[in-house]
Amino acid sequence: MSTFGHYFRVTTYGESHCKSVGCIIDGVPPGMKLDESDIQTQLSRRRPGQSRLTTPRNEKDLVKIQSGTEFGVTLGTPIGMLVQNEDQRPHDYTEMDLYPRPSHADYTYQVKYGIKASSGGGRSSARETIGRVAGGAIAEKFLREAYGVEIVAFVSAVGSVSLKRDPTDPEFLSLLNTITREQVDDAVPVRCPVPECAEKMIKVVEEMKAKNDSIGGVVTCVIRNAPVGLGEPVFDKLEAELAHAMLSIPATKGFEIGSGFAGTTIPGSQHNDPFFKDPETGKLRTKTNNSGGIQGGITNGENIYFSVAFKPPATISQVQQTATYDGTDGSLAAKGRHDPNVVPRAVPIVEAMASLVLMDAVMAQLARQGSKQLLPQLN
Amino acid sequence: MSTFGHYFRVTTYGESHCKSVGCIIDGVPPGMKLDESDIQTQLSRRRPGQSRLTTPRNEKDLVKIQSGTEFGVTLGTPIGMLVQNEDQRPHDYTEMDLYPRPSHADYTYQVKYGIKASSGGGRSSARETIGRVAGGAIAEKFLREAYGVEIVAFVSAVGSVSLKRDPTDPEFLSLLNTITREQVDDAVPVRCPVPECAEKMIKVVEEMKAKNDSIGGVVTCVIRNAPVGLGEPVFDKLEAELAHAMLSIPATKGFEIGSGFAGTTIPGSQHNDPFFKDPETGKLRTKTNNSGGIQGGITNGENIYFSVAFKPPATISQVQQTATYDGTDGSLAAKGRHDPNVVPRAVPIVEAMASLVLMDAVMAQLARQGSKQLLPQLN
Amino acid sequence: MSTFGHYFRVTTYGESHCKSVGCIIDGVPPGMKLDESDIQTQLSRRRPGQSRLTTPRNEKDLVKIQSGTEFGVTLGTPIGMLVQNEDQRPHDYTEMDLYPRPSHADYTYQVKYGIKASSGGGRSSARETIGRVAGGAIAEKFLREAYGVEIVAFVSAVGSVSLKRDPTDPEFLSLLNTITREQVDDAVPVRCPVPECAEKMIKVVEEMKAKNDSIGGVVTCVIRNAPVGLGEPVFDKLEAELAHAMLSIPATKGFEIGSGFAGTTIPGSQHNDPFFKDPETGKLRTKTNNSGGIQGGITNGENIYFSVAFKPPATISQVQQTATYDGTDGSLAAKGRHDPNVVPRAVPIVEAMASLVLMDAVMAQLARQGSKQLLPQLN
Amino acid sequence: MSTFGHYFRVTTYGESHCKSVGCIIDGVPPGMKLDESDIQTQLSRRRPGQSRLTTPRNEKDLVKIQSGTEFGVTLGTPIGMLVQNEDQRPHDYTEMDLYPRPSHADYTYQVKYGIKASSGGGRSSARETIGRVAGGAIAEKFLREAYGVEIVAFVSAVGSVSLKRDPTDPEFLSLLNTITREQVDDAVPVRCPVPECAEKMIKVVEEMKAKNDSIGGVVTCVIRNAPVGLGEPVFDKLEAELAHAMLSIPATKGFEIGSGFAGTTIPGSQHNDPFFKDPETGKLRTKTNNSGGIQGGITNGENIYFSVAFKPPATISQVQQTATYDGTDGSLAAKGRHDPNVVPRAVPIVEAMASLVLMDAVMAQLARQGSKQLLPQLN
Repeated sequence: MSTFGHYFRVTTYGESHCKSVGCIIDGVPPGMKLDESDIQTQLSRRRPGQSRLTTPRNEKDLVKIQSGTEFGVTLGTPIGMLVQNEDQRPHDYTEMDLYPRPSHADYTYQVKYGIKASSGGGRSSARETIGRVAGGAIAEKFLREAYGVEIVAFVSAVGSVSLKRDPTDPEFLSLLNTITREQVDDAVPVRCPVPECAEKMIKVVEEMKAKNDSIGGVVTCVIRNAPVGLGEPVFDKLEAELAHAMLSIPATKGFEIGSGFAGTTIPGSQHNDPFFKDPETGKLRTKTNNSGGIQGGITNGENIYFSVAFKPPATISQVQQTATYDGTDGSLAAKGRHDPNVVPRAVPIVEAMASLVLMDAVMAQLARQGSKQLLPQLN
Repeated sequence: MSTFGHYFRVTTYGESHCKSVGCIIDGVPPGMKLDESDIQTQLSRRRPGQSRLTTPRNEKDLVKIQSGTEFGVTLGTPIGMLVQNEDQRPHDYTEMDLYPRPSHADYTYQVKYGIKASSGGGRSSARETIGRVAGGAIAEKFLREAYGVEIVAFVSAVGSVSLKRDPTDPEFLSLLNTITREQVDDAVPVRCPVPECAEKMIKVVEEMKAKNDSIGGVVTCVIRNAPVGLGEPVFDKLEAELAHAMLSIPATKGFEIGSGFAGTTIPGSQHNDPFFKDPETGKLRTKTNNSGGIQGGITNGENIYFSVAFKPPATISQVQQTATYDGTDGSLAAKGRHDPNVVPRAVPIVEAMASLVLMDAVMAQLARQGSKQLLPQLN
Repeated sequence: MSTFGHYFRVTTYGESHCKSVGCIIDGVPPGMKLDESDIQTQLSRRRPGQSRLTTPRNEKDLVKIQSGTEFGVTLGTPIGMLVQNEDQRPHDYTEMDLYPRPSHADYTYQVKYGIKASSGGGRSSARETIGRVAGGAIAEKFLREAYGVEIVAFVSAVGSVSLKRDPTDPEFLSLLNTITREQVDDAVPVRCPVPECAEKMIKVVEEMKAKNDSIGGVVTCVIRNAPVGLGEPVFDKLEAELAHAMLSIPATKGFEIGSGFAGTTIPGSQHNDPFFKDPETGKLRTKTNNSGGIQGGITNGENIYFSVAFKPPATISQVQQTATYDGTDGSLAAKGRHDPNVVPRAVPIVEAMASLVLMDAVMAQLARQGSKQLLPQLN
Repeated sequence: MSTFGHYFRVTTYGESHCKSVGCIIDGVPPGMKLDESDIQTQLSRRRPGQSRLTTPRNEKDLVKIQSGTEFGVTLGTPIGMLVQNEDQRPHDYTEMDLYPRPSHADYTYQVKYGIKASSGGGRSSARETIGRVAGGAIAEKFLREAYGVEIVAFVSAVGSVSLKRDPTDPEFLSLLNTITREQVDDAVPVRCPVPECAEKMIKVVEEMKAKNDSIGGVVTCVIRNAPVGLGEPVFDKLEAELAHAMLSIPATKGFEIGSGFAGTTIPGSQHNDPFFKDPETGKLRTKTNNSGGIQGGITNGENIYFSVAFKPPATISQVQQTATYDGTDGSLAAKGRHDPNVVPRAVPIVEAMASLVLMDAVMAQLARQGSKQLLPQLN
């Protein structure tokens, strides 16, 4: 449904043509500094056409906090937030509305709900993700302040152009260790931090644009400094929650963590991550990180990293041979120009969902640790 | 935690060395014929060393229904089930217990819970999956009786040997359309239904065995005849629930649905699934199925298919250089012989988790449809 | 937390001094006519000072639907709603803020959250109930349209003045059978439909007002025409959910259903409700209704009725001897005049919470029934 | 459904005639000493015919822990528990089965599930409460070890014989302060700690027995030493969760906390609980305790006390005029002798449910506190 999380929960509402989109964030720790600027930054990063070259402050998608803070500090009560929609009127039906758009949610929404929303796919609208990003920004601020957690997503592939996502490659591991959001945003407009890849990606996108076609890609995300012990066995392993979160983002088709699908071809003797003692902290760490920072569903203190596959946008200006809702063959062409690649915009959404997952796991583990500490010591 | 599902829920308990493992299944539809044989079949398929050549009836992992049925019919009340453990005693500690096993859950469990279970990784034991398979068998029986749903998983890759998982390949689509569990089980011992692949897989496994090493693989699963309209936007899209379910299975590293990661390289004009009217049923169908049977998080009536990546088993008999819990370097070698590849045994677990996801989505949609039908018709 | 319900869920936000209060309603059946007037009626009934003598349309607490409907029909997607707060600024601290108000939530909120909201008790503000009433109005509309369910609450006691709430009294049973909201609202300003009681209640309230004191009371509620079979054993029995819902309303101290506390003194031979066949419908009914329409946690088709105890308002203008947050003895007197009795305003809140409980139970039962109907008939 | 709690959860299964009844307890803090004797004590207290005069060790209802502990210490993983049923066979139908027993759940279960269990009311069987008591015993042990929490329930009324449950009465308050389970159990067989009441209660029960009739009563419960700050606004106020828990116990008809229904007649000036500084601890306390230890849904550190109304047992040996399932008038008489009053046996069930509620609230608050402590101090 429209609620995500257990201890720290976001509940969202809104589609394309209604008055506003928004969310309620429940379970926010009290006593944290928070104002709209903490949230606006990530919301602006998910806007179409954002880049550091363009003016950073356009007056769109401005979030307004409704409740849950006073004098810039969280009260611990639910935080309501909303963003006005610009186009608030459901449109009149046109001939195009006779067709369920191929690989959109028009057909499935109609069968599921037995009613046709003006926007076709109802909540499958990209505007739905605003509530996620707003909620994720609050979670992320807490994680940063409490643990120094850093969450950075970036575009690792567009079409067939891909940076080497290989956990046995020192260059890739180094990228995961050091990459910042600033570096990602500098890589306009594709948000791929490896310049030679970025250039090729731009070309791919331009080619698709020229052909009125579209192309997908991959977003990779790293979470640094997560404490050891997060993730709830057995059904709510951290990677299971991450996979759930990521596959709930529109247009996603795949998720892999650590060595992922490639890891299926590596023998166990190489794939296993042996332990050593970190001389600085005295804590156990692993020499390699094929596990992607999670073992048995629980964080082990190494970098958590994962990748998410996004399909090509379904809306293209090319004519498509398809059928109407009542089964009559015909052809459909989307009007206007459409974005041939949306992966860069998915970057802050992936970061937001990762923040929500981690935050929920943190709260669960704090409850457990807190309860254990109250018990008499065993001898 | 240890509960999966909302309307149809499985809650499990048990680790390796306790008295029994088991589960409670809540939300079972009343009035369905059910006895232990309905559940035992899948439980036996997940046993080590099962094949159709060996005797099908070994006296292990026998499930006993505790409640929720009378005279072989479900009452609608919770079904308790349990399977005895053979080795019920926590073992005494040995030198090997000084080492957290690399890429196992020993270390993370110890930090998370602040206590060390005899079995090391506690609930990360493979025996934990018994409860899932038992619950899944009940869900699956309902889905089959109510809708004729068929769920078949098979091994699609072992190490680098892979059948062509290409949604644009007619052979692959045909395999998805026709494959049966009998065919899968005939393909002993690897459960790969393509004979030339199966042979190569067996060789890979034998090589690994000879080297005291291990190797991972991929399980692909198809769900046929699912009704249109399943899946709850926005956070509980069907693919999100499937991803959650699959990544909660031990040793999984990735999930992809429909065109998956490969779909990111296909232009939208080819990737989109155009509609046509099925002459037999009069219903809309899609000509291609890159969507994997789900659009906007909701089933569209086509085959649902997805793949799950399993890493190589972490337990190998080779000596591994690693460190003890307190950080002292040393070497660790697992005693005895270990299974170099567990992917075939994962087949019924993947089927079970798929059944649980689908069943939960069915219940949610039945509630919605039922409520809508009670409303006066709009004119 | 701030979410109530499972299949049909309301999530609320907001306290006294923030921008707005509001809610998100998830799980609304699609295809139901709905606009703001459906919701405003009950919201206006919960406003202070409402009576049929005063102008019914003051421009306060106007609800605005944000999402989930188009052209006046529900889409099945979440309905966001909000009501602006008039006083949106947290106030500056005064000497009165040094004192936790006796029997308010000031002290407990401060300890729980470790932070002091301007409004003292944070979410314990009466404005928090706006979201409940808004959500309840949607549930209620569905229940009325789908089943002809009627939910009517009324004031049955103020202080020691009480109408006879005796399930063995034909007059009381007749009242439950026939009472309407119009009759309740005609009984201004106490919403007690028995005129002789109402008069005495008014006197009690006036006496309390004169003494700068306050007094509590009881709200009784009847639900007519609920279908048989609602309520989920064992933890979510319908009366358990009703009790939960009612005790979550601010200032409540008790709940009883059917014969309630008085029923503990009636021998079983009289208390049991024998069955008979209703000649009109051919269905089983009970001759008496000490059960209050629920047996074993499940509705039996008879009127559901229950009562809720409300304590006297804690805010009084009398001087109270108490202590400051840091424990210094002192005296506190609330400024201004305060409502000596809030029970009449609780009437629509009780109705709203009853609607939410019933709606959630309806959805659960529709899922079960729907699933059972898909199974082959047993013979 | 059959799960109670969020962070600390009990899930139960089982009815009268199945193999066993049992439960899974999830979210148990790791590192707590626990063996079967911790649980058996309360299970034995809920057995029929238990008193300190009779032999305490009858070999019935022996609980067996299946998982989640090793060497007598909790692992933090789910604890499975079960108790064998003695009569495991569904019985053959007799003429009596033609009649839905008045004020039992036979009729409602049949309509709800569309199937008739041998035991009539399925999960409405008293044996269902075994799982609750087992789970409650674990929660209670934690609460005692962590905070010194004491939970004591006792019979405060049988029929019209009642001890004075008056929060303004020093004797009642003193009883709440000092009463122990030993005192309660000494008061065999009615578990009423006030001897003159107990005697009268015994007479009432004997009278009812002589008449083949039955009678209800009230159980009052006090929770001492609960920490300040428990309870989750707004829907999960502690009293709301307690009310939910108590009304989910079979045969309950009412719940009141603190001053309860009587509090509705006390003016606010007397009802308010003024604060003072406890000279010993330096903490704020209240001079009176009409609030029952909860303000705004949150514990304030005072004794939490509440009462639960139980109706007379529906099974009586008297002939009752009623109707069969198909509506034919007739008469029904239960065979054998039946317990005319079950309130004493409800005492440990009330304690168990109270423990579960408190434990869940503790975990939620520990998560909040833990998260707040990680934030930088505000200045």
